[in-house]
Amino acid sequence: MKYTKKDRQQLLLETLEKNPFITDEQLASTFNVSVQTIRLDRMELSIPELRERIKSVAAHNFGEEVKSLPLNEVIGEIIDIDLDKQAISILDITQDHVFARNGIARGHHLFAQANSLAVAVINDELALTRKSTITFVKPVKAGDRVIAKAVVLSSDTEKNSTLIEVTSKVENDTVFIGQFSMYRVTKS
Amino acid sequence: MKYTKKDRQQLLLETLEKNPFITDEQLASTFNVSVQTIRLDRMELSIPELRERIKSVAAHNFGEEVKSLPLNEVIGEIIDIDLDKQAISILDITQDHVFARNGIARGHHLFAQANSLAVAVINDELALTRKSTITFVKPVKAGDRVIAKAVVLSSDTEKNSTLIEVTSKVENDTVFIGQFSMYRVTKS
Repeated sequence: MKYTKKDRQQLLLETLEKNPFITDEQLASTFNVSVQTIRLDRMELSIPELRERIKSVAAHNFGEEVKSLPLNEVIGEIIDIDLDKQAISILDITQDHVFARNGIARGHHLFAQANSLAVAVINDELALTRKSTITFVKPVKAGDRVIAKAVVLSSDTEKNSTLIEVTSKVENDTVFIGQFSMYRVTKS
Repeated sequence: MKYTKKDRQQLLLETLEKNPFITDEQLASTFNVSVQTIRLDRMELSIPELRERIKSVAAHNFGEEVKSLPLNEVIGEIIDIDLDKQAISILDITQDHVFARNGIARGHHLFAQANSLAVAVINDELALTRKSTITFVKPVKAGDRVIAKAVVLSSDTEKNSTLIEVTSKVENDTVFIGQFSMYRVTKS
């Protein structure tokens, strides 16, 4: 269905509030209008383009917050982190990430994004993965933007153990779920 | 303990029969002699050096056997494969594979070796990972040679499903175990 311009712009604001990392193409498809229309809507509403929206989030210096590894060792870009609670990262899937034959993203890239996010969220100097159960829910293709969210489920300080669940989505569809049992220790 | 030269050379042959990919350094440590002694033993026994031993195994054209992906998409080097039964690959861990801070190999590299081997062993044109449970048993360091062995445990042709277990070892110590539930289909 087609919305009136007023309704569409209102819905656009609400949609971007919930998911600031949605592309113009996805918005155009959602509202059944052209990409050009979405661009004009954004201009009227003073919403910066996606690249700028990501930059403004990423400009925050997470390097000072992440303890367990240098930020350049995280696979994907961290856009939000609350140590020992949750973290979010973005990975843009390119041709380099996919099987040549079928264009489907190779599992280890999705695993690498999720696993490094599980390491990064831990508020300790050493964090290692002990065990992990992962499910590839839906194939991911080149051009997809994977948004991974890590949530700390529980911690057992006596066993230096923390359980983390990472859910990765493309356009709100879950593509990957992983539980990570992490070993953590503060160097003395 | 020290062996006589004759006993040592006999044991050397047996050891290399079982594991052709053991290094001179590991052999020297096993037999409590110098690396130079091992090299002399190898010369007397006409056993080529490790690099040549790997090459002679790898010279076999696995590219014609592996169906599910091009050989250059396998992480590590396949040195043996028996489709739908088992496969072995070698991955030499370098500085590029480890965390800068603690020198421990990053989990996603071990996962990538194991996962791509699980894909390669499947005798079908399309093989995708559905689910995986992995355990990082022991840290792996730069310089380690990881030998992964994939064994097909069971297949359910109605569900296009195959279960594979991959065990990765460094010098006969298990460092990683993964169960991979694979989806497979022959393109028509």
